[in-house]
Amino acid sequence: MVMQSQALGYYICSFLWLVIISLIVSTSSSLNIPRLSATRGARIAQALSTYDSFELETFYYTQTLDHFNFRYDSFATFQQRYLINFKHWGGSNTSAPIFAYLGAEESLDRELSFHGFLPDNAKQFQALQIYIEHRYYGKSIPFGSRETAFKNARTLGYFNSAQALADCAEILIHVKKKLHAEHSPIIVVGGSYGGMLASWFRLKYPHVALGALASSAPILYFDEIVSRKNGYYSIISRDFQETSESCYQTIKKSWSEIEEIASKPNGLSVLSKKFHTCSPLGSSSELEDHLEFMYIGAAQYDAPPTYPVTEICGAIDGVSSKDTLAKIFAGLVAYEGKKSCYVNDYQPGSESLETVQGWAWQICSEMVMPIGNGNNNTMLPPAPFDLKQYIAECKAEYGVPPRPHWVTTYYGGHDIRLALHRFASNIIFSNGLRDPYSGGGVLHDISDTVLAVTTTKGSHCLDLLRANHTTDPAWLVNQRKTEVRIIKGWMLKYYADLQAFK
Amino acid sequence: MVMQSQALGYYICSFLWLVIISLIVSTSSSLNIPRLSATRGARIAQALSTYDSFELETFYYTQTLDHFNFRYDSFATFQQRYLINFKHWGGSNTSAPIFAYLGAEESLDRELSFHGFLPDNAKQFQALQIYIEHRYYGKSIPFGSRETAFKNARTLGYFNSAQALADCAEILIHVKKKLHAEHSPIIVVGGSYGGMLASWFRLKYPHVALGALASSAPILYFDEIVSRKNGYYSIISRDFQETSESCYQTIKKSWSEIEEIASKPNGLSVLSKKFHTCSPLGSSSELEDHLEFMYIGAAQYDAPPTYPVTEICGAIDGVSSKDTLAKIFAGLVAYEGKKSCYVNDYQPGSESLETVQGWAWQICSEMVMPIGNGNNNTMLPPAPFDLKQYIAECKAEYGVPPRPHWVTTYYGGHDIRLALHRFASNIIFSNGLRDPYSGGGVLHDISDTVLAVTTTKGSHCLDLLRANHTTDPAWLVNQRKTEVRIIKGWMLKYYADLQAFK
Repeated sequence: MVMQSQALGYYICSFLWLVIISLIVSTSSSLNIPRLSATRGARIAQALSTYDSFELETFYYTQTLDHFNFRYDSFATFQQRYLINFKHWGGSNTSAPIFAYLGAEESLDRELSFHGFLPDNAKQFQALQIYIEHRYYGKSIPFGSRETAFKNARTLGYFNSAQALADCAEILIHVKKKLHAEHSPIIVVGGSYGGMLASWFRLKYPHVALGALASSAPILYFDEIVSRKNGYYSIISRDFQETSESCYQTIKKSWSEIEEIASKPNGLSVLSKKFHTCSPLGSSSELEDHLEFMYIGAAQYDAPPTYPVTEICGAIDGVSSKDTLAKIFAGLVAYEGKKSCYVNDYQPGSESLETVQGWAWQICSEMVMPIGNGNNNTMLPPAPFDLKQYIAECKAEYGVPPRPHWVTTYYGGHDIRLALHRFASNIIFSNGLRDPYSGGGVLHDISDTVLAVTTTKGSHCLDLLRANHTTDPAWLVNQRKTEVRIIKGWMLKYYADLQAFK
Repeated sequence: MVMQSQALGYYICSFLWLVIISLIVSTSSSLNIPRLSATRGARIAQALSTYDSFELETFYYTQTLDHFNFRYDSFATFQQRYLINFKHWGGSNTSAPIFAYLGAEESLDRELSFHGFLPDNAKQFQALQIYIEHRYYGKSIPFGSRETAFKNARTLGYFNSAQALADCAEILIHVKKKLHAEHSPIIVVGGSYGGMLASWFRLKYPHVALGALASSAPILYFDEIVSRKNGYYSIISRDFQETSESCYQTIKKSWSEIEEIASKPNGLSVLSKKFHTCSPLGSSSELEDHLEFMYIGAAQYDAPPTYPVTEICGAIDGVSSKDTLAKIFAGLVAYEGKKSCYVNDYQPGSESLETVQGWAWQICSEMVMPIGNGNNNTMLPPAPFDLKQYIAECKAEYGVPPRPHWVTTYYGGHDIRLALHRFASNIIFSNGLRDPYSGGGVLHDISDTVLAVTTTKGSHCLDLLRANHTTDPAWLVNQRKTEVRIIKGWMLKYYADLQAFK
């Protein structure tokens, strides 16, 4: 059942699968938030990106390992990396703003390859850009080495979002002090898990950040906040069905055909040949998982200019024969490009291994998102989410049970409009509605300043991920313009308050 | 220099002095927040209190020891006590409100003896009353025993405000779920350190608490937020000076007279006789500290109907001779009542020992309030705050340094109006301006719903501490009425939102 693909995102999904294959049978994607930088969309973004990473200066901050415990161990601190681009900053004299990108579940080196919002907008805001690496990733590893840090739950225990947010608070306060920029407003920016961090940071540290741009942050995908029926798998299916009804029907019926062939004598050989696998299939699920991750990735990152769902469906519908699996293979070739072989050509990279290992811990401790496919009206195989099993198998893996209610205890989420309509301010929740994670996103305005900015045609983190490009469709250009306009509004009010209250 | 007094508050101050006498030379009161339940005012309140504690039911919650670390130890949980009074609750059908009293640095048994706001107002709000004991106090002790829990920084490390707030969140969510009261709005209430907790709880857990009544919460008494010149000692001096200029001048010059006598041969015997000490004075500071704590306590709890500052000054001014120390002794007798002897009659009680030990850890870890008397225009002896010494000696005591900037990092405080004017809602900061801690309080409205309710004549926690009584002065009655009116306003908006958003 190990997944293989040349697309980076699949590596990650595959690795998660690999790491916790023993944990959750038949609920592959309940175990991860596919990374923003992790798929086809990101590859495109990388190609489009125009900013120059050489203008970043690297710093290290002596970070507190445990912000919420006052005992003192030999590893009480660690070196945390952050980068600054000073080029466009208007300076402390004018209290020019600071954009802070909150790194998520990967090395900052990789994060930097896949974003556009900060470098695209720093100039017009005269903003300082800070990029903060998340603890336990990249070069921000406690306990002296990755090996020790990832040894067991005892060393991994400090690896969670509340500690990470406190890290950001310390670094941002430190930087403002060093730059004598006490009144420079900070806008925190992040996508996916990083988007959750950004919105939570504004909620928990309003005295540090003036506002947050939280792109594709599924902060409502915890506990039972959103109905599972409108979840991740349903949105993927809708994406394909809206693109092509016949494509959707073809995919939907393909699973039973694969199973039927696989169940026959020599069936796996037939499938291996039909799909040009790099090595003989060991099981039908090896193929099925690969295809499922392809559809997931295509939907989650269904981005212009190529729109992978359209590409896949174009190929599937383009096969004139009635051979369902020939159509499916055509979709695979369209998505992955012409190669000498397919499906099981997977080779892990060291950086993605880091993300896989890190995120595996995070989802087995606090980031418990009950993503499953329990209803049968999707085009994908059923994969119900089973919390009991999830807990038991995380415990078996790490020796500790996850805390599935902690995120809603600490950050909230239930009745979010009721809770925040008269509290909080200055958060943008941006979502592309073709992104399956939008099912756990904030899609409606909560108040005049806690706003949902959605695009019908958008996918995962599209507004952040990609640098502005002349080929961007109007709806994406407008989404980014709307976000900039909103942030400028926050700034205006802030500077007026600064005048009034000082 | 060990202090002695019959007033409970002095026991606590004395104990703090005892515990950390080696830590901070000449800055006694920089090391504690005198307890609300800890002095003369509280004794009066106890006498006036009319509610019946028998209507409280006791519960225990299996609490997470470390909310911010996902490792799992043998002592991963502990039993935390909370009490509920169901009598007046309107029930879940009407989403009737919940008043939650956040226990502070003492056993809940003691807290309950000294409050009035909840029982006084539960009926008119049809409110459930919950009283939550703070971890490491009373019967809410981790690690199986107080002895183990207080052994060293390793076991004490979990003893801090962020963990305590998360405790409250877990318990309140648990109780609402058990009672099917998901939409019952919660108002958290607390005084002094408990008032800080209440306001911070609303800021950090707006999804759990609709609002907070934070009485005499010196949340701005951290870092360099407020100028030290307007601090604790200046307000005490102002209280006395406003009551009587001659009284103020008498106290001001008394210290040098005590020193002058003490420096003479047999001087301590003379002082011992003059002040009717229970045993011969070992040093002049033994007397000076006792007197200083008396003035501090009198000012902090300068409450009706007797107003201890007025009592003391009445006695001081009432001595017709020019003998300064005879005047001072008369003040002592007026404050403590007629006794066979004075000054060094101190006997600790086991419960106050708990508070003393607990608070000693809290101020040597996160609750670092730079309260000192560095300027010479007060009536009290100079006692400058020395952060370096404070840190060094806390470290010597516990093996860990305090984190003096953590409170402002996590909770904010600098430029509070700028930070919260357009963020947060529904917090009452109530202060009596005769309370020396009001120097670190929020004394001006931050927004339309983050409000300061002050009384010129009020002292520490007077609105919460005492049950309503027919002898209450109009300004105190009005303060409480204002608070009730504001909370009713929050409720009205909440129930309208509940209708609109469900």
